[in-house]
Amino acid sequence: MHNFTYYNPVKVLFGKGQIQQLGQLISPNAKILLTYGGGSIKANGVYQQVEQALQGYKVIEFAGIEANPDYDTLMKAVEICRSEKIDLILAVGGGSIIDGSKFIALAAKYNGDAWDILTKADAIFTEAIDLGAILTLPATGSEMNSGAVVSRRSIGAKQAFMNPLVFPKFAILDPETTYSLPKRQLQNGIVDPFIHVTEQYLTTDINSSIQDGFAEAVLKTLINVGQDIVNGTQDYDTRANWMWAATNALNGIIGIGVDHDWATHMIGHELTAAYGLDHGQTLAIVAPQLWRQQSNNKSAKLLKFAHNVWGLENNHPDVAIKQAIIKTEEFFHSLGVKTKLADYGITVDAEKIVANLFKYSSSNLGEHQNIDATAVKEILAMAQ
Amino acid sequence: MHNFTYYNPVKVLFGKGQIQQLGQLISPNAKILLTYGGGSIKANGVYQQVEQALQGYKVIEFAGIEANPDYDTLMKAVEICRSEKIDLILAVGGGSIIDGSKFIALAAKYNGDAWDILTKADAIFTEAIDLGAILTLPATGSEMNSGAVVSRRSIGAKQAFMNPLVFPKFAILDPETTYSLPKRQLQNGIVDPFIHVTEQYLTTDINSSIQDGFAEAVLKTLINVGQDIVNGTQDYDTRANWMWAATNALNGIIGIGVDHDWATHMIGHELTAAYGLDHGQTLAIVAPQLWRQQSNNKSAKLLKFAHNVWGLENNHPDVAIKQAIIKTEEFFHSLGVKTKLADYGITVDAEKIVANLFKYSSSNLGEHQNIDATAVKEILAMAQ
Repeated sequence: MHNFTYYNPVKVLFGKGQIQQLGQLISPNAKILLTYGGGSIKANGVYQQVEQALQGYKVIEFAGIEANPDYDTLMKAVEICRSEKIDLILAVGGGSIIDGSKFIALAAKYNGDAWDILTKADAIFTEAIDLGAILTLPATGSEMNSGAVVSRRSIGAKQAFMNPLVFPKFAILDPETTYSLPKRQLQNGIVDPFIHVTEQYLTTDINSSIQDGFAEAVLKTLINVGQDIVNGTQDYDTRANWMWAATNALNGIIGIGVDHDWATHMIGHELTAAYGLDHGQTLAIVAPQLWRQQSNNKSAKLLKFAHNVWGLENNHPDVAIKQAIIKTEEFFHSLGVKTKLADYGITVDAEKIVANLFKYSSSNLGEHQNIDATAVKEILAMAQ
Repeated sequence: MHNFTYYNPVKVLFGKGQIQQLGQLISPNAKILLTYGGGSIKANGVYQQVEQALQGYKVIEFAGIEANPDYDTLMKAVEICRSEKIDLILAVGGGSIIDGSKFIALAAKYNGDAWDILTKADAIFTEAIDLGAILTLPATGSEMNSGAVVSRRSIGAKQAFMNPLVFPKFAILDPETTYSLPKRQLQNGIVDPFIHVTEQYLTTDINSSIQDGFAEAVLKTLINVGQDIVNGTQDYDTRANWMWAATNALNGIIGIGVDHDWATHMIGHELTAAYGLDHGQTLAIVAPQLWRQQSNNKSAKLLKFAHNVWGLENNHPDVAIKQAIIKTEEFFHSLGVKTKLADYGITVDAEKIVANLFKYSSSNLGEHQNIDATAVKEILAMAQ
């Protein structure tokens, strides 16, 4: 096991009706910026629950944070935070709202150019506005980590940052708030955390048995609940297991002390940029082919995946690995998520994808830093 | 799944040489009370590593905290904290040192009678001295939770408390510091976290698949490393997996949103009080018989335990449950830990044990509150 630091101070309130606890979590004198997206929280009643719980508080609303939150949108909220002296940002929604609110929280207390947050590794940040989150879309794990991804459409950029100052002070996860999600978000909400896990789990076998066992528990839970979730089940425990699985996929607990890959995400980001595919769709397209292309390097972990996640214990190792990848593809198909570029009507321009992927950094990808331009082209050809 | 709150702000630094990081964790001006036990940390070099890392700090030592830390001992440290205006308590050792230091940290900032901490449910605490921990004995999980057990031998009492103010600010876990532990502590260091898990896992099956999967990962890890640990292996990864398993057994992650039992611990505490058995020994004696006596109530979870932990998937459910309990006993035997009272030369006085157990509370024990005096006597008879 590698040395690691684990730190996650987010207070999670999980379960039915927990939004009512907001008043216990926020100082009575706090001035709140309520951030949300396009209004789905009004249609599903979450907004009304929040409004009820915040009676007596000074609340300013900032609606309209888009999917893949945009720098220019967020900077408007930063101005409001400064001019209104906001004490707490309450993000209500999915990963995009929470990610965007993390950026707002840090930018509002930073005297330099806010773009530094996303681009300047040596910039020093000392303070952020307190952040709380009410999650309504399990997928990204942002509610219980310190990372965020922000787009800047005006210059065609999409950047990530991590900073411990933006851990939410609290996160409220009520599985009932997910009942009204549309099918496409349910699909992405299974695939996204599944691949979050595999980016950390399907790497090098370094005998990290707690992390591996936890990762397998998250994967098996997602497999068990996947079809019911996509079919819109209103069974509370199924929703609860899904929601808690998605959080644990990216709150650090399975990724500490182990190697990380993230090549699927990096290639996937370029496919989203080039062809407008959903993030979850790109992951379902890239991951299986990347595992095939890297199967020699990942064989020990792929075999654990085959045995412990897919129950393929009685096969020859090579067969078990092949079968495990096929079973994963079949699982995605069972959710209605296609796994080939052609299925989406796309003929990939691999040269262009690779050029963009390595534009700012010539470093190879993957836990062994061995996924180079040639390997990416192979993966894309296999995914065509 | 039940509603839950999860909050664990402990910063864990895990791995080889992490004690060197102390200077990054403690303010340069902090006045430190270094608490430890009987001096084993001097024999194994941990004390010297700490001394090296704390060069330049003002450090006062408080040695001699005993196993099952005693109120009267700890109150002497409380006086030192007050008179010397200590800013941080650095606990170096196992669960007793860390538990005792939690009590010191809270008592030193409390104006009332410190015994309130352990006995007065409605006492209000607003502050504690900062606490850091360097763990050298994996077992209790105290390094990453907010609970502690303190004895007061002068009046024959042993009480527990929990308070979020005493979460360690940081905990350093270097598996290499465990290499010199004696066999008995290694044995207890496997049994104790194993039963911590089963107190939370072998309860009601409420379809909590993340918590159950995580619990199974901890149990399987302890089973896998158990014999090597007890045999004194110097293999780093085996020690690391053991240490991280023991922490996760009682840091909250497997116990949130599920029913808890803890009857084995409560009966075990009385056996320690009456016959001087090690805590771990009492757990190994009580747990298997309690599972048998409660097998109807615990059948769904015992069956999961049989399938997912012991791999007994092909048996009839009743047979699988019986076999799983036998396999657990055989596992304890393989560690050199005996599981019957007679094996320790004890003839139990069940009337006395039961009288003490229900002296202060007539509540029954267990997740269904159905383990009454009669059930405890049955369990003790079975464990004879």
